Amino acid sequence: MPTQDQLSDYAEVAIGVGLGLGPDDRLVINSPIDARDFTRLLVDVAYRKGAGNVDVIWTDEEVTRSRFASGPPAASEAITGFGHLLNATTESGDYLLYILAEDPDLLADQDPEKVARFRKLNSEFTKPLRDSTGSNKQNWAIVSVPTPSWARSVFPDRAEEDGMETLWQAILRTCRVDQPDPVAAWRAHVEHLAARAAFLTGRRYDSLRYSGPGTDLVVGLPARHQWVGGQTTSQAGVGFVPNLPTEEVFTSPDRERAEGTIAATKPLSLFGSLVEDFSFSVVGGRVVEARAGRGQAVLDQLLHVDEGSVRFGEVALVPESSVVAREGLIWRNMLFDENDACHIALGKGFPLALDGGTDMGQEELQSRGINESSVHVDFVVGSRDLNVYGVPADGSEEMILERGEWAFGF
Amino acid sequence: MPTQDQLSDYAEVAIGVGLGLGPDDRLVINSPIDARDFTRLLVDVAYRKGAGNVDVIWTDEEVTRSRFASGPPAASEAITGFGHLLNATTESGDYLLYILAEDPDLLADQDPEKVARFRKLNSEFTKPLRDSTGSNKQNWAIVSVPTPSWARSVFPDRAEEDGMETLWQAILRTCRVDQPDPVAAWRAHVEHLAARAAFLTGRRYDSLRYSGPGTDLVVGLPARHQWVGGQTTSQAGVGFVPNLPTEEVFTSPDRERAEGTIAATKPLSLFGSLVEDFSFSVVGGRVVEARAGRGQAVLDQLLHVDEGSVRFGEVALVPESSVVAREGLIWRNMLFDENDACHIALGKGFPLALDGGTDMGQEELQSRGINESSVHVDFVVGSRDLNVYGVPADGSEEMILERGEWAFGF
Repeated sequence: MPTQDQLSDYAEVAIGVGLGLGPDDRLVINSPIDARDFTRLLVDVAYRKGAGNVDVIWTDEEVTRSRFASGPPAASEAITGFGHLLNATTESGDYLLYILAEDPDLLADQDPEKVARFRKLNSEFTKPLRDSTGSNKQNWAIVSVPTPSWARSVFPDRAEEDGMETLWQAILRTCRVDQPDPVAAWRAHVEHLAARAAFLTGRRYDSLRYSGPGTDLVVGLPARHQWVGGQTTSQAGVGFVPNLPTEEVFTSPDRERAEGTIAATKPLSLFGSLVEDFSFSVVGGRVVEARAGRGQAVLDQLLHVDEGSVRFGEVALVPESSVVAREGLIWRNMLFDENDACHIALGKGFPLALDGGTDMGQEELQSRGINESSVHVDFVVGSRDLNVYGVPADGSEEMILERGEWAFGF
Repeated sequence: MPTQDQLSDYAEVAIGVGLGLGPDDRLVINSPIDARDFTRLLVDVAYRKGAGNVDVIWTDEEVTRSRFASGPPAASEAITGFGHLLNATTESGDYLLYILAEDPDLLADQDPEKVARFRKLNSEFTKPLRDSTGSNKQNWAIVSVPTPSWARSVFPDRAEEDGMETLWQAILRTCRVDQPDPVAAWRAHVEHLAARAAFLTGRRYDSLRYSGPGTDLVVGLPARHQWVGGQTTSQAGVGFVPNLPTEEVFTSPDRERAEGTIAATKPLSLFGSLVEDFSFSVVGGRVVEARAGRGQAVLDQLLHVDEGSVRFGEVALVPESSVVAREGLIWRNMLFDENDACHIALGKGFPLALDGGTDMGQEELQSRGINESSVHVDFVVGSRDLNVYGVPADGSEEMILERGEWAFGF
């Protein structure tokens, strides 16, 4: 187990850097009950910083599983009560902190259609929340702590305690809690990411080209797209870092323009089941074929969620030398996997990815190429064999990532 | 630990007898995370009975304590997000199951004014829920399971495991899970309670007189009052047993008519602190003086909550031979203490306690003597030294309880 000092530093990074929480702010924490000890510490740190209210929405994997394993068909069509609570947070502007730690294969034995339908219905119900966080009306952040079921999935051959400890130390390193002054280290890191994002925005690429084993894809970028990364700023003007760790710079592609094939390079936990060895064929921005070595049924469900779930909402660049990649793990947790290597997301795009986008309605956003969907599913495409090129309007090409590393001098 | 069969029987009693839950009913369970194992079983049993949705609102004592111990003053004035969720259940008619298991002295070190104010504000916010359950628009029930903090409070000198096991066995006996057919035993028991309530209703007493050490109190009963107990029926016509265990028959007194003094005979956990050795002086239905050997400050808070918190909302009769009393414990948990001996409540009365009351608005209920308040706090007054008399309109007296036992032949 980490020392008390390490835990305190990590909590400070999560609440201070991640959320940017200050006096009188209201906070909702969504946490598995298995993360009890660290979540209790987070609550206390938030109150000591003057939080006006902290609610914890605890979740439990066994309760989640029971819905599908023991419930009648209607239970997979139900809107859970928590949707009301989550939507209510948009009115009071509550800060949201998600503790992401789960068995990535929890629902592998359940009917994928039921699971996907349940997730879709509840995601649609909480659209007010998604729209609010998606346009930075609320501060939010995601962090992880080891839980037994997640640790078992990453280290199936190790004793639970050993797996938990290894995960803890990896998390603390990737979240810069091993640095002498973790908060200062984060300030420097997000400045670095911001500089990288500004540089890419300045290049005004018309599209990106991905080339690697099983991958040959061109993805259009909208006019006035912006690359973002690291810290962002709420509509109230408060800086926050929504993902800890975060190593990516990203933008949203043009939902209508993508052609070719793209192969995933890491497993994906989708609707509670692992999908492995999968790839997509894309025509006119739409995924027209999906192939998976494992998890085909659940992957097919994703593509049937709604019109937007077959189109891309995000392209993100991460170098192979990132502090997350350096750990050399298959994390089986998207917060880490997506900061381990380049990734792309199917589903909802980001208003933030467009100059002036947070002031636009959904129709205008879509007309400018930003995708809309009730889902946003990241999958990893990066590796040491991936090259990514920026394509300006003149059709020339500039190398952005060469064999997974930044080709520019920074 | 109880056997798996005992746990299954107890879950069946809670879901089947307590809630009366059937196919398609929606259920919300409010449970401490320390009761995780049994709550998981409850969820699974509910789904197997066809529940259309089960949400668990998990709570954690450390999180509760942090609000007062580490939060700013504003945190004690906050409305928690869970109020939205609880109020939303009234619209969907969700069944509610409370798992009552807590450290009765959790907040003893905190400012009683802050704690009382927080409880009052949040209770007022969830008035829609209270009105709904109070008039049987929703099915609801309360059960308990041992948790370490509760067990430590009951058995401070025993090892935790020993205390937990002793509590478990006592709970299972009082909930008739030790019977060959627990559900059949409950059916017989609630019929017995119903017969006793009907008998008392038929006596049409004008008032009750309590006489015992430190107690000399006359409490008026409203015209057309009804005694109830055991099973009740929802507005949709579904029978349920809101308290497991339950040994009481009860009604609501006339809020304007009570005179004398009444001494508590067991400790009371009030706003998270234990109050001990306390008594009230009552004039014109109002508590005009409260004295406590321990917990005076928190008791004073109760009397300042609102106009109704100084008046009585319930009088309940329990014989000293009840299965709960037979355990010979100081339970430090109101669900058991109130079924261990006679009790009275300050605060909100019951529409159900009046013939036709569930069809009356709040004003009419009050004009007929049913008290209104944002609180309902039971305290135990029964003992082997208590006599209770029924006083018909002619001023004669009939003994109801003699030295804590039924004076009638049943």
